[in-house]
Amino acid sequence: MNEFELIKNYFQKLSKKSPSALNLNDDVFFDKNNRLVVSVDTYTEGNHFIDFKKPDLVIKKIIRSSISDLICKGVKPKFYFISGSGNKNSFSKTNLSKISKSLNEEQNKYKIFLSGGDTVFSNKLSFTITTIGFAHDIVYRNKAKINDDIYVSGNLGDSYMGLLFLKKKIKLNNLLSKYFTNQYFMPNIQLKLTNKIIKFANTSIDISDGLLTDLDKMINNQKLSYKLYLKDIPISNNLKKILDQRKLPKINYISNGDDYQVLFTASKNKSRIIRKIASNNGIKLTKIGITQSISKKSSIVDDKNMQILAKNKGYFHKF
Amino acid sequence: MNEFELIKNYFQKLSKKSPSALNLNDDVFFDKNNRLVVSVDTYTEGNHFIDFKKPDLVIKKIIRSSISDLICKGVKPKFYFISGSGNKNSFSKTNLSKISKSLNEEQNKYKIFLSGGDTVFSNKLSFTITTIGFAHDIVYRNKAKINDDIYVSGNLGDSYMGLLFLKKKIKLNNLLSKYFTNQYFMPNIQLKLTNKIIKFANTSIDISDGLLTDLDKMINNQKLSYKLYLKDIPISNNLKKILDQRKLPKINYISNGDDYQVLFTASKNKSRIIRKIASNNGIKLTKIGITQSISKKSSIVDDKNMQILAKNKGYFHKF
Repeated sequence: MNEFELIKNYFQKLSKKSPSALNLNDDVFFDKNNRLVVSVDTYTEGNHFIDFKKPDLVIKKIIRSSISDLICKGVKPKFYFISGSGNKNSFSKTNLSKISKSLNEEQNKYKIFLSGGDTVFSNKLSFTITTIGFAHDIVYRNKAKINDDIYVSGNLGDSYMGLLFLKKKIKLNNLLSKYFTNQYFMPNIQLKLTNKIIKFANTSIDISDGLLTDLDKMINNQKLSYKLYLKDIPISNNLKKILDQRKLPKINYISNGDDYQVLFTASKNKSRIIRKIASNNGIKLTKIGITQSISKKSSIVDDKNMQILAKNKGYFHKF
Repeated sequence: MNEFELIKNYFQKLSKKSPSALNLNDDVFFDKNNRLVVSVDTYTEGNHFIDFKKPDLVIKKIIRSSISDLICKGVKPKFYFISGSGNKNSFSKTNLSKISKSLNEEQNKYKIFLSGGDTVFSNKLSFTITTIGFAHDIVYRNKAKINDDIYVSGNLGDSYMGLLFLKKKIKLNNLLSKYFTNQYFMPNIQLKLTNKIIKFANTSIDISDGLLTDLDKMINNQKLSYKLYLKDIPISNNLKKILDQRKLPKINYISNGDDYQVLFTASKNKSRIIRKIASNNGIKLTKIGITQSISKKSSIVDDKNMQILAKNKGYFHKF
């Protein structure tokens, strides 16, 4: 049973009485009456991050992953709470001061405030981050329309290349290894999109599990499928260079998660305003496909409009 | 370094920019502008609960402990988020349905709503609960006045007796063991106090770590000490019976934590209204001592006004 089924079977009914919980089927909780938006995420060593050798970087990754949930809904994160479980080594004075320094840097960068939390002893290291923001409205999941354009912010795949390097599954020179590990630990999340995405997006999600998995999740309650154009999926020049040089198929490197970019759909008549907002604010937004009737199968096509298969549809937390 | 020092040294400065965080020195986060009150707590197996043999009861204990933080500040809890880390055994179908059933019962009892959360795989079982409520004002810590009366709600010590039984450190007959373990797992938290305590309390805290420890925490930034009258500290008839029969000193059984009763101080001129509200609403509120100038040492006195020592000042989470 994976995480989504688990939630569905046992907990969705408990949230039924609270429409704000959006049936536990969105990135955030939104209480319209109080304008309150909340996201809660848990990150464990060996699962969401490899190890704790670089606490300063792990903390940045966790914070960005967490506020990304609000950002993709068009909400500026404001307060965060951090609960850490760990042992003496994880929370040594050296590590604590690194964590504190990183948090301070993230606070300044994203204008968020540490607002509370908890620390408990455990041999297994994990963090739960609660992020809170305020908004009159948000961009929901499962509100795509048929024939919407599908967009993604930034570039995909850099974080995965960083992970492959960190796991010693690929060799990279110093310059590139630094670039990709930085992308893995410090994804370029799109704070500038908040207050703007609400103007043009019909539906949205952030890419944490992988492009295709999250695309499925974004429209999983709708009678829609998608068609993506592989060549249009944005990747960095660095990633392009590696894929070209080593003849690695792009399709296997763009849907492995940890990108924390915003995936959304918009009506075709919004394409001009999207281009304008993107260019005025220096946000990279790329049209990568369309939504279509569920009578057609979801697909990714190559340059010749031939359907291709992704090796990895993304990452599920399995139980 | 214990938990309080740890928070102080490394994280308090990060919350400085956010006055709502109350310097991380209160039970809750309170953002007055948005009327938002938040509490985040993490509970781990072997630390905050013995084991997970009774998931239905452990979940109730955790939920009550968590909403108790808001209740003691005079705030009605409304939404809660639950993040569970555990393995296949902890989150078996049997356990999940027990958890779900317990959550449903707590939701109905306390009018709270499951609003989101997360489940991740870990060999170490833990839960982080985020609880949210709304209030124009709260009862803060460290706002006691000199010569305030000190009050406590309900009874103390029942939960500790339940813990001793569960840990096989004391023998009890069936009837009593059931009573005390129920008190341990399902403390009688005082939902009825919310909306009322703000009318009379100067400062408050809930008793999770132990009467004396939490009393210290409630006034730790103030130039105050306390004097408690042992005979006035309220205990249940069942606990009284056991202490009397086995000649166990009361002082060793009333400050061991997990009571989740509300500890507060109030000016002496509030004693009439407190009696009235308590009696009108069926809430047990007992005057157990006074605050005094820090030139006098904090003390507990017996029937003969002789100072006595508590074996256990309470429980710290040590690192």
